[in-house]
Amino acid sequence: MSRFVEKSRKKAGSAPGTLVYVGERKIDQPRITIMDYESDQLSERTIKTIDELIPLVDSPTMTWINIDGIHDLPMIEKIGAHFGIHPLTLEDIVNTGHRPKVESFDNYLFIVIKMLHHDETEKRVTSEQVSLLLGPRWLISLQEAPGDTFDPVRERLRKGKGRIRPSGCDYLAYALMDNVVDHYFTILEKIGAQIEEIDDAVTENPQIDIPHDIHNLKQAVIYLRKQVWPLREIVNHLKKEETDLIHDSTRLFLSDVYDHVVQVIDTIESYRDLLGGIRDLYLTMVSNRMNEVMKVLTIIATIFIPMTFVAGIYGMNFKYMPELEWPWGYGLAWAVMAVIAIALLAFFKKRKWL
Amino acid sequence: MSRFVEKSRKKAGSAPGTLVYVGERKIDQPRITIMDYESDQLSERTIKTIDELIPLVDSPTMTWINIDGIHDLPMIEKIGAHFGIHPLTLEDIVNTGHRPKVESFDNYLFIVIKMLHHDETEKRVTSEQVSLLLGPRWLISLQEAPGDTFDPVRERLRKGKGRIRPSGCDYLAYALMDNVVDHYFTILEKIGAQIEEIDDAVTENPQIDIPHDIHNLKQAVIYLRKQVWPLREIVNHLKKEETDLIHDSTRLFLSDVYDHVVQVIDTIESYRDLLGGIRDLYLTMVSNRMNEVMKVLTIIATIFIPMTFVAGIYGMNFKYMPELEWPWGYGLAWAVMAVIAIALLAFFKKRKWL
Amino acid sequence: MSRFVEKSRKKAGSAPGTLVYVGERKIDQPRITIMDYESDQLSERTIKTIDELIPLVDSPTMTWINIDGIHDLPMIEKIGAHFGIHPLTLEDIVNTGHRPKVESFDNYLFIVIKMLHHDETEKRVTSEQVSLLLGPRWLISLQEAPGDTFDPVRERLRKGKGRIRPSGCDYLAYALMDNVVDHYFTILEKIGAQIEEIDDAVTENPQIDIPHDIHNLKQAVIYLRKQVWPLREIVNHLKKEETDLIHDSTRLFLSDVYDHVVQVIDTIESYRDLLGGIRDLYLTMVSNRMNEVMKVLTIIATIFIPMTFVAGIYGMNFKYMPELEWPWGYGLAWAVMAVIAIALLAFFKKRKWL
Amino acid sequence: MSRFVEKSRKKAGSAPGTLVYVGERKIDQPRITIMDYESDQLSERTIKTIDELIPLVDSPTMTWINIDGIHDLPMIEKIGAHFGIHPLTLEDIVNTGHRPKVESFDNYLFIVIKMLHHDETEKRVTSEQVSLLLGPRWLISLQEAPGDTFDPVRERLRKGKGRIRPSGCDYLAYALMDNVVDHYFTILEKIGAQIEEIDDAVTENPQIDIPHDIHNLKQAVIYLRKQVWPLREIVNHLKKEETDLIHDSTRLFLSDVYDHVVQVIDTIESYRDLLGGIRDLYLTMVSNRMNEVMKVLTIIATIFIPMTFVAGIYGMNFKYMPELEWPWGYGLAWAVMAVIAIALLAFFKKRKWL
Amino acid sequence: MSRFVEKSRKKAGSAPGTLVYVGERKIDQPRITIMDYESDQLSERTIKTIDELIPLVDSPTMTWINIDGIHDLPMIEKIGAHFGIHPLTLEDIVNTGHRPKVESFDNYLFIVIKMLHHDETEKRVTSEQVSLLLGPRWLISLQEAPGDTFDPVRERLRKGKGRIRPSGCDYLAYALMDNVVDHYFTILEKIGAQIEEIDDAVTENPQIDIPHDIHNLKQAVIYLRKQVWPLREIVNHLKKEETDLIHDSTRLFLSDVYDHVVQVIDTIESYRDLLGGIRDLYLTMVSNRMNEVMKVLTIIATIFIPMTFVAGIYGMNFKYMPELEWPWGYGLAWAVMAVIAIALLAFFKKRKWL
Repeated sequence: MSRFVEKSRKKAGSAPGTLVYVGERKIDQPRITIMDYESDQLSERTIKTIDELIPLVDSPTMTWINIDGIHDLPMIEKIGAHFGIHPLTLEDIVNTGHRPKVESFDNYLFIVIKMLHHDETEKRVTSEQVSLLLGPRWLISLQEAPGDTFDPVRERLRKGKGRIRPSGCDYLAYALMDNVVDHYFTILEKIGAQIEEIDDAVTENPQIDIPHDIHNLKQAVIYLRKQVWPLREIVNHLKKEETDLIHDSTRLFLSDVYDHVVQVIDTIESYRDLLGGIRDLYLTMVSNRMNEVMKVLTIIATIFIPMTFVAGIYGMNFKYMPELEWPWGYGLAWAVMAVIAIALLAFFKKRKWL
Repeated sequence: MSRFVEKSRKKAGSAPGTLVYVGERKIDQPRITIMDYESDQLSERTIKTIDELIPLVDSPTMTWINIDGIHDLPMIEKIGAHFGIHPLTLEDIVNTGHRPKVESFDNYLFIVIKMLHHDETEKRVTSEQVSLLLGPRWLISLQEAPGDTFDPVRERLRKGKGRIRPSGCDYLAYALMDNVVDHYFTILEKIGAQIEEIDDAVTENPQIDIPHDIHNLKQAVIYLRKQVWPLREIVNHLKKEETDLIHDSTRLFLSDVYDHVVQVIDTIESYRDLLGGIRDLYLTMVSNRMNEVMKVLTIIATIFIPMTFVAGIYGMNFKYMPELEWPWGYGLAWAVMAVIAIALLAFFKKRKWL
Repeated sequence: MSRFVEKSRKKAGSAPGTLVYVGERKIDQPRITIMDYESDQLSERTIKTIDELIPLVDSPTMTWINIDGIHDLPMIEKIGAHFGIHPLTLEDIVNTGHRPKVESFDNYLFIVIKMLHHDETEKRVTSEQVSLLLGPRWLISLQEAPGDTFDPVRERLRKGKGRIRPSGCDYLAYALMDNVVDHYFTILEKIGAQIEEIDDAVTENPQIDIPHDIHNLKQAVIYLRKQVWPLREIVNHLKKEETDLIHDSTRLFLSDVYDHVVQVIDTIESYRDLLGGIRDLYLTMVSNRMNEVMKVLTIIATIFIPMTFVAGIYGMNFKYMPELEWPWGYGLAWAVMAVIAIALLAFFKKRKWL
Repeated sequence: MSRFVEKSRKKAGSAPGTLVYVGERKIDQPRITIMDYESDQLSERTIKTIDELIPLVDSPTMTWINIDGIHDLPMIEKIGAHFGIHPLTLEDIVNTGHRPKVESFDNYLFIVIKMLHHDETEKRVTSEQVSLLLGPRWLISLQEAPGDTFDPVRERLRKGKGRIRPSGCDYLAYALMDNVVDHYFTILEKIGAQIEEIDDAVTENPQIDIPHDIHNLKQAVIYLRKQVWPLREIVNHLKKEETDLIHDSTRLFLSDVYDHVVQVIDTIESYRDLLGGIRDLYLTMVSNRMNEVMKVLTIIATIFIPMTFVAGIYGMNFKYMPELEWPWGYGLAWAVMAVIAIALLAFFKKRKWL
Repeated sequence: MSRFVEKSRKKAGSAPGTLVYVGERKIDQPRITIMDYESDQLSERTIKTIDELIPLVDSPTMTWINIDGIHDLPMIEKIGAHFGIHPLTLEDIVNTGHRPKVESFDNYLFIVIKMLHHDETEKRVTSEQVSLLLGPRWLISLQEAPGDTFDPVRERLRKGKGRIRPSGCDYLAYALMDNVVDHYFTILEKIGAQIEEIDDAVTENPQIDIPHDIHNLKQAVIYLRKQVWPLREIVNHLKKEETDLIHDSTRLFLSDVYDHVVQVIDTIESYRDLLGGIRDLYLTMVSNRMNEVMKVLTIIATIFIPMTFVAGIYGMNFKYMPELEWPWGYGLAWAVMAVIAIALLAFFKKRKWL
């Protein structure tokens, strides 16, 4: 499974609008849940066939259609036909390797964002594509796999408190996006905690696996960056898009999301800088520690080498070596060696190598 | 306590406009002080309940309401209701992990800036969120904890000299922001002094804890940068915002703040460069010093190793070793060793290794 | 053959509009294939002489003229005369070292893009220039060598399904560009796979040829970047160009291509970052491993050097060495040596060098 | 004295418009010189009290008031009152730690630029703030200390040749700014000469103080950059400012200054790159030289260690060592050692380590 | 002669419009050649005195005046007077250290570009300033020294084929600029070839002079960059300048030059990246090779040191050393040493250090 490349979006050269699902099949059977609501009422159910949708579309109530699992291509095409979705949009929905983007069509807005998950065990960040189709009175959200990320929004709809039910589908779209962006903060927090952990480890105990941890975090940050950067442009575009599909009251909330996205990006950039700084520190620490080791060891060796040389001299077997006969020869040899050792130590001390 | 991540703003997925205080509770009981003034008079008091505020809001005098401590959520909500503050604004006020920003609403301007403190003991920069709500005749400032940062402004109000009392609340807002930005210079000065100290230390005495000092300063600068950068955009926005809440006479003063913010940013960027340069110098110094050590030590070893070899030769116990019998054998051995040592020293000298 | 420089476009100083072919002659005889189509019919043939083209140009049907091999300069000039192509355009067509670009003339649009190939054996990316001339009812595509890249588009034309036949030549031009950009993803995938391979190799087994692999990949990425960056501007320009040659319905599809180009660029930038990170990791790993080796070896040497010194002492031949006469002298020497070894080991242990 | 930080502009929190001089007192008594001129006449004098200025301001002649020494705050305030200068401007004049900037008021333009000096002995660049107040018929220039930088302009005024006398005060302001920017080139030349010197030194003789020289030059370049960058914006702003204070004929000359400022900035950026390159080269040279040393020394040691081992073997005192009794044992030992030495040398040679 | 700094443009502080020639005097006597042409005729001659020019200026034919050698200041001033050239322009013409730029005056356009030469022997890039003055029916080109760069244009004028004679002087100016830019490609090719050469050398044989070659190439690229970057803006400006001096038909050709300039810049940026990559590779290669050397040598030393210790033990002269008396003592010693050597080798092998 490729970590660094998104899979080619489709078979290269196939006609645009050709639906080819490129992801893993993360769920067996797509699950379609419908929430149909207006200010003071809400009906919720799971449907089997797409045909059940038809009456809902034209009803005056708001309809949120959530689809988990997008590999059932005929179903996607059927939905496209019902709601008047452009083939290129359908293609983008099933090509999950897509860049976050927003596109406005006559009758709907198409938004692609990335839901991010932090895999605790592998310490990696993975992404899942979420497509939103925002029509006048309906919102279709499509995910690759079922998840509980949208549950808080569902809960708020069910409770019916606050702005969510009286507002239109654009507010619902905002709520979902807000939800996804909120989730980014959770991931940033986890990564931030790991960065801190490494920062402490470097100072206290530079072990051999720190470079790997830094490397992995760096790659996670690069990955995050690639997923989040386009969001800024998207939300800004939504804020300013001249379309009836987004009410002015919702634009204010989009500004709020915009702020959060910018904050996420700021934090990601800080993390890059921080990781760079930690790596620099790690290298300096390791190198200093190594230098320290080498210096002490080399000094020991350097002191004993001349002394061993003196011992070697008087280990020679020449017949005529006057020193060997001297009664105080042995003591003298020791004295010479001591002088050498002390002189070297003094020299090292003076040079501040000790 | 997380150093690198701002805490997630709220429980991910909760409805927008839900107030959740995420910071530490830095003060037990919020303290609300009111300064009600016009050109020639000033009344100042501390109030207990929010209801005392009501008559002040519609009075023709200027009212500055300063609130220390923002964890009392019902109080915040009550204020919001009184002054017609948007729920998203209230949420941003209590979520202290927010990015500096400015937002204009119909009846007020909302400004978030960061007050920075330099913790002498831990040599770290910490930040505190200051929210300003600027209405037509009132200004509400909200801080996490009581502090003396705004005292000079209070003093000027009390003395009633200069422009501050006759001008409107927009000038007061300017004065507070100016105050905060002025404070940044104090922090920059402290960091600058530390950078200089390290710069001198590198040249004179590269010790082992320099990398840590550089690392910590770098992180402080990254932190500062993240807090200050958005301010530039904010002040620029305020200068140009088409709103009646800011008078033209005040815009000139905002230009002044703008200049100071740009100067702060310039200085921060210089610090980054300077720290990078110091780090480079440190590494070069350490590496040069190490090389010096290793070279001298290695040379000593290298000279004695061949000499010891010669001594080893004549320490062999072969029965038939003619040199051992020569009367001048011992002297000759010394001569050979001397020749080797001198030759090696000359070679090293010639190669400029000594 | 120069890898890093595009060949000078023409003999420096020659008149603009002078046709000089600078590439390799990749095909002996240019091959001209024609597809003449409207919604419900298609004729396809290969022609020999350029004169056969004349009746087709003014016919109401769409005509796609594909030319493989562009070194036959008189032929190019003849085509230029038939279709009213500007001399500078003709010069750019045969100067294959050109930067991707788009230029609009009164009667046609001129588009230069690069088709990229990944040479498996040499692990290098090579490029081929594709020129498109888009007129009102004709499209001329010129390639340096015949290839199968455009086959899927031909197939779709033959099958006559979908949008391709009823739409105009602008849609055909889009289809060809889409095809080329789709091909980029294939190359990105291959490079991505190689990056992953190296990433794994660094962790598991840092061998000596990793730096070369990283270096080559880096150069491939630099090359890719240079070829793809201008495309973004080009497609954006086409989307917004005020010309009758591109219908509004096609602009939507160009947006799609634009997204893909941006995604390609994003991925290329990520690759740069990833390769930089891998290089850093590699260097750290190698350096750590080396340090480890040196440390262990140096420690062994350092322990034995003092012990050997002791042995050397008692190898001296002084007449009066009291220790030599002691019955337990030998045992004592061993003891001394053992103490030295243990003391050093303890010291190293304490300093955490072991 | 702080090298890296500009002193905080004023006591943090003091009211805007409060004059506090923050620099060193570089001159005892401010010196005010006046040049009053029109096309065909010029009067020049030094005045003692500010009151002497009053009649000059409203005269139809041009008046250039040059003030050396700005610590006399009452004097500054008096001038402000006479000429209708905004308090914020006065504050900026005496706060010499200011960023270069331009501000337009109703009745005057306020320009802050930096005069740079190169301190030969300390090899540092220092800056002095120059403030220009350009009114309709007067120009006030304020410097911290007296200097000869403006002498050439004075000389041109006295000689009365060329454009300077007939043109208005805006041309005079231009002439002063041109003068200051011209001076930058002198400093760039000096720094450029030092860079060249270091570049040569690296190649010929990498000594231990090169890193410091590079470091100091780098910091000088960072400092220069910070002082010069804002100038570009300032001159551009002056060129385009819609004000009657600057005549169209002068704008052309401002374009000329603009070109020079851009050239200064270009050169500064080149210097950064060049210094980076020199530092890289230095490190590579030092490291290569060190490697060379270590390699040769290690090889010498490595050859003698096995030979010494052989000698050690036959220095053992075992009773039964057959080789010792052989008549040709000694010769054989030599032969063995020679073989070892030659084999090792051949191995090193083959591996290209020699 | 300064390599890194352009000479200060004039004596700092001299009046603007003062002509001071700052370059080397590259030719003794300026040479003025005139080509006077219209569609069907051409006269060409070399003139001695500037007065001969006067009748040509007002003639209805196009006149190209080429001046080699610009140190004859009175001549330059005379030309300036004849053609109504602004003093600042004249100053810029003789100040050859100028940045490329374009300036439009009422009656002429002033263009400064850099002709680049590659000095084969010194492997350096040098530049020469070319000034173009484009009037309604005349073009003046000024060079520091005579050269053959413009010969192809002259040849085309003489032959009278193509567009060059019928078009106006703006086309001639384009032709000259195109010529100069074409020449850049030649230089890029040479530098590209050198980069390739070094790239190969690094892989095959990292010698000690590679860092210098990389350093010199880097500096050449920095130099090139500084000369070429401004050109982009210049040509773009010419394309869009609202002036009658440039006909619409010529603007298309300027687009062509623009493309080439962008391509040159792209290539220069690639070269920077490539050189950075090669430097990284070089350092890694050298370091890896060095590590390899050190490792093998250290291992050899480490194996023999314990063995030599054993030999040292049995070289001691203690009276009571039981092993020395054992008949198989000597063999045992060998065995012990063999065991040590094998154990160490096995350990190294297991740790993958061999």
